[in-house]
Amino acid sequence: MARRRGRGRKRRSEGGVRQLPWREVVNPYAPMEVLSDDQVEAIQRASLRLLQEIGIRVLQGEARSLLRGAGADVDEASQMVRFDPVLIEEKVALAPPEFTLHARNPDRHVKIGGRNIVFTAVGGPAFASDLDRGRRTGTYEEQCDYLRLVQSLNIVHQEGGGPFEAMDLHPETRHLDLYLAQARLLDKTWQPQALGRERADDAIEMACIGLGVDRAELKRRPALQSIINTNTPLQFDIPMAEGTIAMARAGQSVCVTPFSLAGAMGPATLAGTLTLQNAEALMGIAFTQIVSPGTPSVYGAFTSNVDMRSGSPAFGTPEYTKAAHASGQLARRHNLPFRSSNTTASPTVDEQAVYESSMSLWGAVMAHTNLVVHAAGWIEGGLTGSFEKLVIDAEMLQMMAEYLRPIEVNEDTLAFEAIEDVGPGGHFFGSPHTMERYETAFYSPMLSDWRNYETWEEAGSVATLARANGIWKQLLQDYEQPPLDPAVDEELCAYVAKRKEELLLS
Amino acid sequence: MARRRGRGRKRRSEGGVRQLPWREVVNPYAPMEVLSDDQVEAIQRASLRLLQEIGIRVLQGEARSLLRGAGADVDEASQMVRFDPVLIEEKVALAPPEFTLHARNPDRHVKIGGRNIVFTAVGGPAFASDLDRGRRTGTYEEQCDYLRLVQSLNIVHQEGGGPFEAMDLHPETRHLDLYLAQARLLDKTWQPQALGRERADDAIEMACIGLGVDRAELKRRPALQSIINTNTPLQFDIPMAEGTIAMARAGQSVCVTPFSLAGAMGPATLAGTLTLQNAEALMGIAFTQIVSPGTPSVYGAFTSNVDMRSGSPAFGTPEYTKAAHASGQLARRHNLPFRSSNTTASPTVDEQAVYESSMSLWGAVMAHTNLVVHAAGWIEGGLTGSFEKLVIDAEMLQMMAEYLRPIEVNEDTLAFEAIEDVGPGGHFFGSPHTMERYETAFYSPMLSDWRNYETWEEAGSVATLARANGIWKQLLQDYEQPPLDPAVDEELCAYVAKRKEELLLS
Repeated sequence: MARRRGRGRKRRSEGGVRQLPWREVVNPYAPMEVLSDDQVEAIQRASLRLLQEIGIRVLQGEARSLLRGAGADVDEASQMVRFDPVLIEEKVALAPPEFTLHARNPDRHVKIGGRNIVFTAVGGPAFASDLDRGRRTGTYEEQCDYLRLVQSLNIVHQEGGGPFEAMDLHPETRHLDLYLAQARLLDKTWQPQALGRERADDAIEMACIGLGVDRAELKRRPALQSIINTNTPLQFDIPMAEGTIAMARAGQSVCVTPFSLAGAMGPATLAGTLTLQNAEALMGIAFTQIVSPGTPSVYGAFTSNVDMRSGSPAFGTPEYTKAAHASGQLARRHNLPFRSSNTTASPTVDEQAVYESSMSLWGAVMAHTNLVVHAAGWIEGGLTGSFEKLVIDAEMLQMMAEYLRPIEVNEDTLAFEAIEDVGPGGHFFGSPHTMERYETAFYSPMLSDWRNYETWEEAGSVATLARANGIWKQLLQDYEQPPLDPAVDEELCAYVAKRKEELLLS
Repeated sequence: MARRRGRGRKRRSEGGVRQLPWREVVNPYAPMEVLSDDQVEAIQRASLRLLQEIGIRVLQGEARSLLRGAGADVDEASQMVRFDPVLIEEKVALAPPEFTLHARNPDRHVKIGGRNIVFTAVGGPAFASDLDRGRRTGTYEEQCDYLRLVQSLNIVHQEGGGPFEAMDLHPETRHLDLYLAQARLLDKTWQPQALGRERADDAIEMACIGLGVDRAELKRRPALQSIINTNTPLQFDIPMAEGTIAMARAGQSVCVTPFSLAGAMGPATLAGTLTLQNAEALMGIAFTQIVSPGTPSVYGAFTSNVDMRSGSPAFGTPEYTKAAHASGQLARRHNLPFRSSNTTASPTVDEQAVYESSMSLWGAVMAHTNLVVHAAGWIEGGLTGSFEKLVIDAEMLQMMAEYLRPIEVNEDTLAFEAIEDVGPGGHFFGSPHTMERYETAFYSPMLSDWRNYETWEEAGSVATLARANGIWKQLLQDYEQPPLDPAVDEELCAYVAKRKEELLLS
């Protein structure tokens, strides 16, 4: 396979975009803790009390039946489901602490849990944006281009479920075209749109076809990372329940993420909103285990706050960072893989977008987040997927990945002899100790410009946003589709054609 | 005093820039550690071995005499000074772990050490820059404007020694005009330009006049934070030695910061460059204690790396962040206050400037940095002080300050009753629990725009850089000079006039 792509590889390494190679990212440092153990327990107790005394409104009948069967207290009239704390703790304990998601390229499998960090591309926005065409509704061809970039950027480990809507396609069948593009254009893992039974089942079927496996094999070797948002406060709706049931039965990973904005869907205190988040996440994960014990599951955190003057959601705030740290502590208490995100409320790609993203990203990394959703490309509170932000975030993720490589301390790196040889007032630039390692000594950026001002000015004063624009265009030019067995491709297309007919006729 | 400023205060609170009040910033979280204890000791041992076997070239005679007197091994021919490890450890142990710097406004005193974080404005660049006039040489009037902004931004605790050169002033006496502006326009502490005896002594004299104290009182209640860079590798030059001696004798704080760029002034390994940095910082601090035991001193770290392809210095790199963490560990080993910085190599204020600054700032804060030098305003590897970057950094510092406020966990914040009242699918925006705290619940930004895209677009699509430009202009418009006794002002002016005459005639 590598041989068939030889020409492309050569071109990339000669004239293309310089970037880090694909790499598993592991956090060797201690997690940042913003809560004491007592505070963690206080939130945990309060969450269990919410689940026991108030309960969750579960709108879907099958889910209520399953919960009743497992021992939850279900009131059919109000649709309220209440949980004994022991039931929650017992079921949550069935979720594996770590699991692998399987890509069609075995080198692109990802481990979720432990000290691993998986960066995923933006998923779910309505709009597309780039420097040339501005903010707009996106098309399928643009969506495919975005997927090509996600495939090309090595630091992005997983596709995020579609960077924006393909508005030129029929809404009822759009998910099939997305899955087809994900299966064809990427050899990385990808996220399905798991709302509702149809979309979830289509993802599972197409994952089977793409990987050439049956459902039993897919369950043994899961591939899909689904994201299920609960309707904070305390509600679990029909599409979410259907998606969760389908994914859990198929043994695919379910990340349960309460959409908890303090001051709106949650109380105007972090402790209160974290309590709600924790209750809903634990309930959702317990539900995955009730549907199918051992389902790979992820504790999702999305707690942020609203602007109390306007009610607008805010992201990448100081509260967001603290909530991410605290959520990591709550997830680790149950030995669950943990999800957080790279977010910003900025209406455009600018300095605010970057400092809010930095707050989010540091919040995530220091919290020992395992799955950093929307790690690249998100702006405007998640309403827009940006081409330039994808590149800027990828640079920030690369820097994080390098930050997470420990300092080597040994005789050789301590360099006593080199320092002695160079002597007081000397220079290390040409010293043998430097020459031996200059190519790999330090991180070499993809996007940053380190030239002096005069050189930068002579070269046209091209600032970061314009350079990011040039990089994604270069990546698209250099993109080569990872080879896919034509028979598999044909089967995927046939599935999509058949399903479109069914969905549009029904 | 407050009464005399009543009108201005009112105007600020009504139409001016919304910002956090002045606040002592304390880091309640554990420091991030990237080195094991064994690795810290390995670097420490290697540093002491450098000082013992190679030594430091000390170019100034008086400094060599002082060092010889304290027991160091001085070779006058080569100017090399070698140190017994015990001498270094004993002298360093005399430096206080924590001290206070005194401002003319007692509410603006700053504590250096422990868990305190002091943010200082950019100091030392050659050029000025803003959105309207671009990058250029600055004038004294512009320098004064910058100082007015430093005074106005509450999150900036200390002035940083001049944001850029006042090129319309004579180079021999420029420091006097700077000190005059610092003493007049600010009621916060400020940094002198401590290179050479003259500049150091002038700062000390003018600090005495400004505070209305004599030298003995100034020594008891230090006011000045001087920054002394060693010439890495292993050299300590004449102006630095003179500045250190003057400041230490006067009991003013000396921050010894080796200018150690891995791959240029240091080996192309972090361990090697940290060893050099540690050797020079410890030597410098030992020297301050030899000059005057108990001198308030700060362990300065500036280790970054160069771009190995071009030799250009790089800042805010992943290596920079790790080096800051490691340096914090080395400083804490000696119970010394610690200095790091907010840096970027970006030639302009853009997304790169922000993500590099973020890497630096997180590196600093998580390292338990006590003195964050250049915390606001630095771009272009320190060659330029920017007006817009000052505002952007101030927003980032405010966010950090809020991040460092622990989450409150108690019955009230856990909000069980509020959640019960709102109920499943409800909304907290108008709930009594929210109404009680909506004004102070969350961080309210100075610069960030959280409006939705349509509103932002209708208002002219003003992005962050342009908003920062508007903010510093508004702050300048609202600025009021903190009252200074006219007799003190007169004495300061008389001192400057006398010294100018002396310096220009000599």
